Amino acid sequence: MEVHNRYVSLKNHINEAPSESDLEIKTTTLSLEPKEGSGDVIVKNLYLSIDPYQVNRMKFYSSSQETSSFSQRLPLGQAIDANGVGEVVASDNAGYKKGDLVAALIGWEEYTNIHGGGGVFRKIESTEFPLSYHVGVLGLSGFTAYAGFQYVCKPKKGDKVFVSTASGSVGSMVGQYAKLAGCYTVGCAGSKKKVDLLKDKLGFDEAFNYRDEPDLKATVKRYFPDGIDIYFDNVGGEMLEAAVANMNVFGRIGVCGAISEYTDSTKRAAPDTLAIIYKRITIQGFLAADYLQSYSEFIKDTSNYLRQGEIHVLEDISLGLESLPSAFVGLFRGDNVGKKIVQVIHD
Amino acid sequence: MEVHNRYVSLKNHINEAPSESDLEIKTTTLSLEPKEGSGDVIVKNLYLSIDPYQVNRMKFYSSSQETSSFSQRLPLGQAIDANGVGEVVASDNAGYKKGDLVAALIGWEEYTNIHGGGGVFRKIESTEFPLSYHVGVLGLSGFTAYAGFQYVCKPKKGDKVFVSTASGSVGSMVGQYAKLAGCYTVGCAGSKKKVDLLKDKLGFDEAFNYRDEPDLKATVKRYFPDGIDIYFDNVGGEMLEAAVANMNVFGRIGVCGAISEYTDSTKRAAPDTLAIIYKRITIQGFLAADYLQSYSEFIKDTSNYLRQGEIHVLEDISLGLESLPSAFVGLFRGDNVGKKIVQVIHD
Repeated sequence: MEVHNRYVSLKNHINEAPSESDLEIKTTTLSLEPKEGSGDVIVKNLYLSIDPYQVNRMKFYSSSQETSSFSQRLPLGQAIDANGVGEVVASDNAGYKKGDLVAALIGWEEYTNIHGGGGVFRKIESTEFPLSYHVGVLGLSGFTAYAGFQYVCKPKKGDKVFVSTASGSVGSMVGQYAKLAGCYTVGCAGSKKKVDLLKDKLGFDEAFNYRDEPDLKATVKRYFPDGIDIYFDNVGGEMLEAAVANMNVFGRIGVCGAISEYTDSTKRAAPDTLAIIYKRITIQGFLAADYLQSYSEFIKDTSNYLRQGEIHVLEDISLGLESLPSAFVGLFRGDNVGKKIVQVIHD
Repeated sequence: MEVHNRYVSLKNHINEAPSESDLEIKTTTLSLEPKEGSGDVIVKNLYLSIDPYQVNRMKFYSSSQETSSFSQRLPLGQAIDANGVGEVVASDNAGYKKGDLVAALIGWEEYTNIHGGGGVFRKIESTEFPLSYHVGVLGLSGFTAYAGFQYVCKPKKGDKVFVSTASGSVGSMVGQYAKLAGCYTVGCAGSKKKVDLLKDKLGFDEAFNYRDEPDLKATVKRYFPDGIDIYFDNVGGEMLEAAVANMNVFGRIGVCGAISEYTDSTKRAAPDTLAIIYKRITIQGFLAADYLQSYSEFIKDTSNYLRQGEIHVLEDISLGLESLPSAFVGLFRGDNVGKKIVQVIHD
């Protein structure tokens, strides 16, 4: 049996912010009968993760290519791989049977053949939480926040923590983990609505709208009169410079993303090297994939926080594959509030 | 009894490379009779350390001020404190008696009253090595190299190590420690003479003159076709960017100095943040003072290396306090080869 499989692909490589016309929806056919002995797992995709880092794979050239599979340049015309949640519709793999729900590396498409089953992160054993949570708060976004904050930023109770893109998929979780760790926590975001959300719903001690602030160094100083111990960086650029200027001695900066630089390489951060030396600052880039040994701990801890209402979930779900190009492009305008997800609608 | 005490002081704060006219030699008198109960130790200064970082203390303003005593802005007209070696001429301190030789925080002057004895790092018990070694190779320069390489860069056998200002007081030691740790070691310096010295005398695997290289990224790539694991940074600026571009995954950058930025803040490094993330690079500023618990281990190890001829010493000694302004200014032209020291001549 074959199905029509619609997918989102890249029409041309880009060098700036993406526009919807850089992407197109195409259709192919997919056999729902896995080859015997292949170990393949064929899933019907339900929720797709929409992430800013994907834009780096769409560029003509990136210096960071080939350091890991998900920094490699995307080919044109093919389905774009992405994390998501799917339901197994056919399996040649002893580990998975029809009807299983899985969190996996799938694609911006309606169906994915997960070759050999290797792209499956885990089976979703319980439907206690909405399935979309396994893309965001219990997926790689949440895990990136968890691992980066815990193992790169190394928080201590009372630390002063600054988070950029604090209402985003990762930032919103970092801020909440920081509060749970007993840290003074300030976030920045790009609208009043987001700032209110951070303070009123997510429990940040303070938050500010960076678009209202012409002098970021002074702004950050205002919110951290006693300096920053931990900066969880999702934006790079000028905000990273402002953070370095306000770090305390032995401060830690976990560099998770650099969204302000992704689409404009002229915005590259040039923090004060002397401050890095004299304040003994550590700036560390990381990928959540390096901390997979603590994935089950993350799931356990975060599930408990969710059950006890100690973590609030920010999701921003668009419906249907055809909404995906606009959802993706909107990330770079700050349209999303929380984790951007596309729910695939199957007839 | 009183002596005339000549000292070097700052005439005016500066914002660029220093010139000799920014410094002046003045004379005061110093009592050689320490106050009873003061714990003071009065030393006749023999060798004075001349270090690039001092220029940061001479500026009108530095963002890094007040994070540690030796980043604080220097007052005008007073003796400038600096490391060195002296001979005790009078003491109210039970720990030190007349004739003792000490490595201590003294000053760019002929005599120093070390108040309460607190500025003494250690007594020099043996004259096995030239006294000047206790300013450089067995002093804070050597210790900075030792601690930074060991504890910040965390070398493993076979690591590929890049060192900037490799013929300087710290760089020349880092390169030799790296070779002793079994690392492939490349240094850069600012003249053919220095490059030859690195390869022929200090045992670097390769070295290059950065002044001959218009495209540092390509140059570094030529010397590290398989990438850099450790970059020991003494210069900041463009060289730091070139290193980041050529780092391997999980590469470590120890930021010890940023001499290219000290006197020209427009040269600030803007390394590729995306490369830092995807390659999981750690950039860590450090001060040797944070690792004092391993100071005696450093002295033991390095003394042994010296005895066995496994470390070569590069010293550049000027004679007389009046040579100090020119010696200091020359650091920023790259005049010195190895540790710059002024030997104080007493009548």
